[in-house]
Amino acid sequence: MNIKNEKIGFIGLGIMGEPMAKNLIKAGFDLIVYNRTKSKTASLKQLGAIVANTPSEVANNSKYIITMLTDSPDVEEVILGQDGVYQGIQNDSIVIDMSTISPNVTRDINSKLEKKKSFLLDAPVSGGSWGAVEGTLSIMVGGDKKAFDKSISLFEGMGKNIVHTGPSGMGQTTKLVNQILVAGTMNAVAEALVFASKSGADLEKTIAAVGGGAAASWQLNTLGPKLIQGDFEPGFMVKLQQKDLRLVIEAAQEMGVSVPGTSLVNQFFVGLISQGLGDEGTQALVKAHEQLSNIKARV
Amino acid sequence: MNIKNEKIGFIGLGIMGEPMAKNLIKAGFDLIVYNRTKSKTASLKQLGAIVANTPSEVANNSKYIITMLTDSPDVEEVILGQDGVYQGIQNDSIVIDMSTISPNVTRDINSKLEKKKSFLLDAPVSGGSWGAVEGTLSIMVGGDKKAFDKSISLFEGMGKNIVHTGPSGMGQTTKLVNQILVAGTMNAVAEALVFASKSGADLEKTIAAVGGGAAASWQLNTLGPKLIQGDFEPGFMVKLQQKDLRLVIEAAQEMGVSVPGTSLVNQFFVGLISQGLGDEGTQALVKAHEQLSNIKARV
Repeated sequence: MNIKNEKIGFIGLGIMGEPMAKNLIKAGFDLIVYNRTKSKTASLKQLGAIVANTPSEVANNSKYIITMLTDSPDVEEVILGQDGVYQGIQNDSIVIDMSTISPNVTRDINSKLEKKKSFLLDAPVSGGSWGAVEGTLSIMVGGDKKAFDKSISLFEGMGKNIVHTGPSGMGQTTKLVNQILVAGTMNAVAEALVFASKSGADLEKTIAAVGGGAAASWQLNTLGPKLIQGDFEPGFMVKLQQKDLRLVIEAAQEMGVSVPGTSLVNQFFVGLISQGLGDEGTQALVKAHEQLSNIKARV
Repeated sequence: MNIKNEKIGFIGLGIMGEPMAKNLIKAGFDLIVYNRTKSKTASLKQLGAIVANTPSEVANNSKYIITMLTDSPDVEEVILGQDGVYQGIQNDSIVIDMSTISPNVTRDINSKLEKKKSFLLDAPVSGGSWGAVEGTLSIMVGGDKKAFDKSISLFEGMGKNIVHTGPSGMGQTTKLVNQILVAGTMNAVAEALVFASKSGADLEKTIAAVGGGAAASWQLNTLGPKLIQGDFEPGFMVKLQQKDLRLVIEAAQEMGVSVPGTSLVNQFFVGLISQGLGDEGTQALVKAHEQLSNIKARV
């Protein structure tokens, strides 16, 4: 069975899902798509995708079903809810959830799908909307290894660094680990640049002086220059990062793990959202620190 | 005046100072050295250095005087105290303080030295004891630009990435910015790996999966593998990092800057020191998180 002859289902055509689906078409796959707001399917239809009326219909017409949604309840609803994937699913299907959701919810859904001799692969991504458009996403995959191997050419149509990290839920766990790192590092960048700014330092020179040694990070060297230029365009939005940190904190609490630094950063993101800054890039975290210390960290 | 014909003073032959002084001898400089514990001067004497009995005597015999000490009071004592550098200093001298101390204390000492037509360059380093031995330290220099230019071949004898970041105190400020970044990033690494461990993740695979993207940092990719192997040998010691974070917090408070993340990490280091772990490397920060969550983050 060549996966290129299979129809591929794709559910969730948002800021991430739409370019990912387009990249699959570019890679030669036939798509059947579903989106709650139907108007967003137009661009995919134009490229030859079939548009389904329900997730169930998608599952009934494809044995590889990709979901790219916002949060755990969205994925539960689309897969297990009324007219959901589960209602239409064929035996031996593979559902690939590329959303970032709870590892526990992931394992629960996978268990249910096993009753239909099917698997859920959890395959969250990092790399933001730029990576989705360019097909350079990092993809961290948990779940059945054979199902992963069968799906690899789909992943290769959307991303570059594709790693199977363990059993069901482990892709989500890896993604949450990623977000702990990203958030904590960005907070250090924000505090450091506000401190530097109040000290009267040349901010560009400061990043150049410290960005090559033990203080080096992607967050400092990629997002640092943006934020000191006042560029808050999102690579990854504040409101989505806050949602991911909530997932971290929930998963940590379920396991009895204390994440004090992550919790602190989460609180700053909560505050930014309440100020209407949820759609800005995560580098807007600096604004919380600017407010606290009444100083701008800009060149 | 060729600096190679000058006698160079070096005060403070500890874990950093001794290899730095040796590298200067290797680079062809004549040294006159002082250390409070005189026995530590033996290895330098063997290499041809003159041993002075007081900092004042060092200053009386050299117009370039390097200090490499632990904290602000040590530098104040050695420069301004009894038999200190200031008592013996000649006009037109350059004192190069490579310790990490308070930017404000730095500026005060520089002002006093100006009365003797001399300058203090603040030139703290990063790169740890490995960098000191190998002569690959990053050196962040504040103070008079002409004094910096005159001293450049001394810096080149000890380090690689040498940047003049601004007026007196700005070298120290840049170093403190570096420490905010280093500490906050290491905390994120520690929380992430404890979370991953409790989740049952393969820790080496986890670092491989996330270490190349937005979560990438020197702390993750260099110290992460050490800490999951249980290797807590110091590149930079917990007790020195805690001292530097105290300097950050003091300087921040003086300026009215809030550093909540840095303060949290500082508290963890305080706890580790009280457990007798002050001489371990900063990657031992993971131990605080392991204790909190009752799980080891080791392979």
